[in-house]
Amino acid sequence: MTAAKKTVPALEVNRERLWARHMAMARIGAIEGDGSCRLAMTAEDAEARALLAGWCRDAGLELHVDRAGNMFAVRAGSDPARKAVACGSHLDTQPHGGRFDGVSGVLAGLEVIETLAEAEIATAAPVAVVNWTNEEGVRYAPGLLGSAWYSGLIGDDDLSNLRASDGTSFDEEARHRGWLGETSVKFPVEAFLELHIEQGPILEREARQVGIVTSVQGLTWLDVRVLGTDAHAGTTPLDHRQDALLAAARMLEALNEAGRDHSSAARVSVGRLRTATDGPSTIVGEANFVIDIRHPDPSTLAELGTRCAEICQSVGSRSGCRTSVTQRISVPPTKFDRRCIEALEAGAVRRKYSYRQIPSGALHDASNVARVVPTAMVFVPCRGGISHNVAEYASPEDLAAGTNVLLDAVVQLAS
Amino acid sequence: MTAAKKTVPALEVNRERLWARHMAMARIGAIEGDGSCRLAMTAEDAEARALLAGWCRDAGLELHVDRAGNMFAVRAGSDPARKAVACGSHLDTQPHGGRFDGVSGVLAGLEVIETLAEAEIATAAPVAVVNWTNEEGVRYAPGLLGSAWYSGLIGDDDLSNLRASDGTSFDEEARHRGWLGETSVKFPVEAFLELHIEQGPILEREARQVGIVTSVQGLTWLDVRVLGTDAHAGTTPLDHRQDALLAAARMLEALNEAGRDHSSAARVSVGRLRTATDGPSTIVGEANFVIDIRHPDPSTLAELGTRCAEICQSVGSRSGCRTSVTQRISVPPTKFDRRCIEALEAGAVRRKYSYRQIPSGALHDASNVARVVPTAMVFVPCRGGISHNVAEYASPEDLAAGTNVLLDAVVQLAS
Repeated sequence: MTAAKKTVPALEVNRERLWARHMAMARIGAIEGDGSCRLAMTAEDAEARALLAGWCRDAGLELHVDRAGNMFAVRAGSDPARKAVACGSHLDTQPHGGRFDGVSGVLAGLEVIETLAEAEIATAAPVAVVNWTNEEGVRYAPGLLGSAWYSGLIGDDDLSNLRASDGTSFDEEARHRGWLGETSVKFPVEAFLELHIEQGPILEREARQVGIVTSVQGLTWLDVRVLGTDAHAGTTPLDHRQDALLAAARMLEALNEAGRDHSSAARVSVGRLRTATDGPSTIVGEANFVIDIRHPDPSTLAELGTRCAEICQSVGSRSGCRTSVTQRISVPPTKFDRRCIEALEAGAVRRKYSYRQIPSGALHDASNVARVVPTAMVFVPCRGGISHNVAEYASPEDLAAGTNVLLDAVVQLAS
Repeated sequence: MTAAKKTVPALEVNRERLWARHMAMARIGAIEGDGSCRLAMTAEDAEARALLAGWCRDAGLELHVDRAGNMFAVRAGSDPARKAVACGSHLDTQPHGGRFDGVSGVLAGLEVIETLAEAEIATAAPVAVVNWTNEEGVRYAPGLLGSAWYSGLIGDDDLSNLRASDGTSFDEEARHRGWLGETSVKFPVEAFLELHIEQGPILEREARQVGIVTSVQGLTWLDVRVLGTDAHAGTTPLDHRQDALLAAARMLEALNEAGRDHSSAARVSVGRLRTATDGPSTIVGEANFVIDIRHPDPSTLAELGTRCAEICQSVGSRSGCRTSVTQRISVPPTKFDRRCIEALEAGAVRRKYSYRQIPSGALHDASNVARVVPTAMVFVPCRGGISHNVAEYASPEDLAAGTNVLLDAVVQLAS
């Protein structure tokens, strides 16, 4: 039987159903301004999981929940030797999050399965939709928790020892909410595809419907400590100061210039800057900040890190301050699986969507899963590149286009 | 009788006693590293007041405590029509304060009176030592509280309504500690002199023993709000950002340059900078900071304020951010009394001290008192210009020299 080949060209996901489910999900933990707040393993997260589970049950899928609370809802395949082709993302959100980050990837996975079922298309491999636990990492650090456990980056003990900022244990809370699975066995997957909003402005700016994600940028965080001398703003002449905040300000400007001069793929950012004193009349004697550096190429990433550290040392010295730079974390770039990328790209080509290959600037569950399973991602544009914000928006048309690409890739990979 | 004229050239304060009293006072609320912590109207402040009151009693002085807890210990004069010539400062400290800021001014006042008494020098006017309440403003805002009440800047009701950050009422706490006076009458003073450590590096750098303070710089605080757009550090290209923290950093650098270019008397500082977000991976959408601007001349101060606001607007606009600048406070410069200044300067000349005239960069109780009473100040050098810090240090020799200058001025003004 070659049902897939015959029907794929005409096969379309149901745009209205996909959109309506986004809106239904957004009513759980709704906050002002069309936003959502569903922190992992809260009552809101549990309600969102129950809504998804109900839709999966209605679609005749079999639900598996593991030790980390990850949900796998499966449509059986015809070949008992095959592992599942899985699609998904996460249902938890930022505290002032939007309606699409994560949610779209889960609902796209379900939409793919329902479209296959309605068209009565059999696949050799089972097809699963996944909801990874605690991607955002707001309530339980680190983020990407469920996929980190799935890919072996953390173990059962790490989950048992995990506590929220309010002291509640992950295990107890997950059990209390009804979403702590019994099994530590990882649900068998042979390919993983994640649809996600871009969370950046590139697709919108270039008027692309779809981005085929080839890699995830590597990330380095450098902790910078600048030591000057506390002094009185009124009594200390300007040429007699070791002003750590002024030195840090000069570093921020020089770091930004270095990033701009390097390449369009380079990202050099400072989002956290703290001072040891906070008095308007006290010259700051100590300032600390974190440099977030990203690049898709590992050696370029390392080179950028070295350059940033040199800049801080040099500017600090010129400003009369002592500067120390230490690496806090470094996550290597992820290259996605060629076969998965090609399967997604083939769908975009076949459907004549405007698309481009794109690296992901943000980490995703797919970055973890890619360590153990062939993986790729598809991006859909989001308005103004805005995410982690109630104003986050992706259009029904773009969501459907991205999900059609996912559908084609699933059919190909699961055949 | 002209006792003063005969004895002044030989008169010297007792350096050992003055130093020993500093060390005795520093044992109250002592903290690690030779520091002191005596916040206003705490048990430590009450103990320091009791120690001072005991010394004053032993010296035969009459103690008056007013509605604001200000202490006036008085040696009588020979002319019943004269008001007092008063010297003093404050015994309260910063939470991690030193042994000299404030304390030296009070102990110098007491030392002047004891020296006069031991030499049996009569003065026409009474001579008083003053301890002003809550100069530092740590526990009760604003600072300079006792002198603000004394000079009529705040009234009895303001004291009654005043609460500490921990909720305790000023009146209740002062009464509880035994230092709430009954009277709202301001103790009559005809001249006020305050000795204080410089809190800056100028006297030390120029190897001067004494600074004759002619004025207190005016002060303007500008609140600057920079609005950009929150964005993801990984996904947002560097040329597509409205980074409010980066814009603020550029402003800080430009403001510092403007201050340096202006004049050596200009002070332009930023000691408080806060961001609306604090995530290392989130481009900052809002940054707020306070510019502290000082100059001894009122029209130059106003001109500097305008220039700083223009710089922020211009840099903000070039950085793609909206910027608002509002004036929070503006304290005009204080010019001290010519006769008081001349009395102090005459002492420095007579004793052949290396001295200079100097404006005060910091506000002092003298700034308030000068509104209602002829006033001036004398500065003594402090090591490295450091104050508001446990490392604060003034030498016994410099403290004695400053107190000798005070002694000569008191003899002259009270004659």
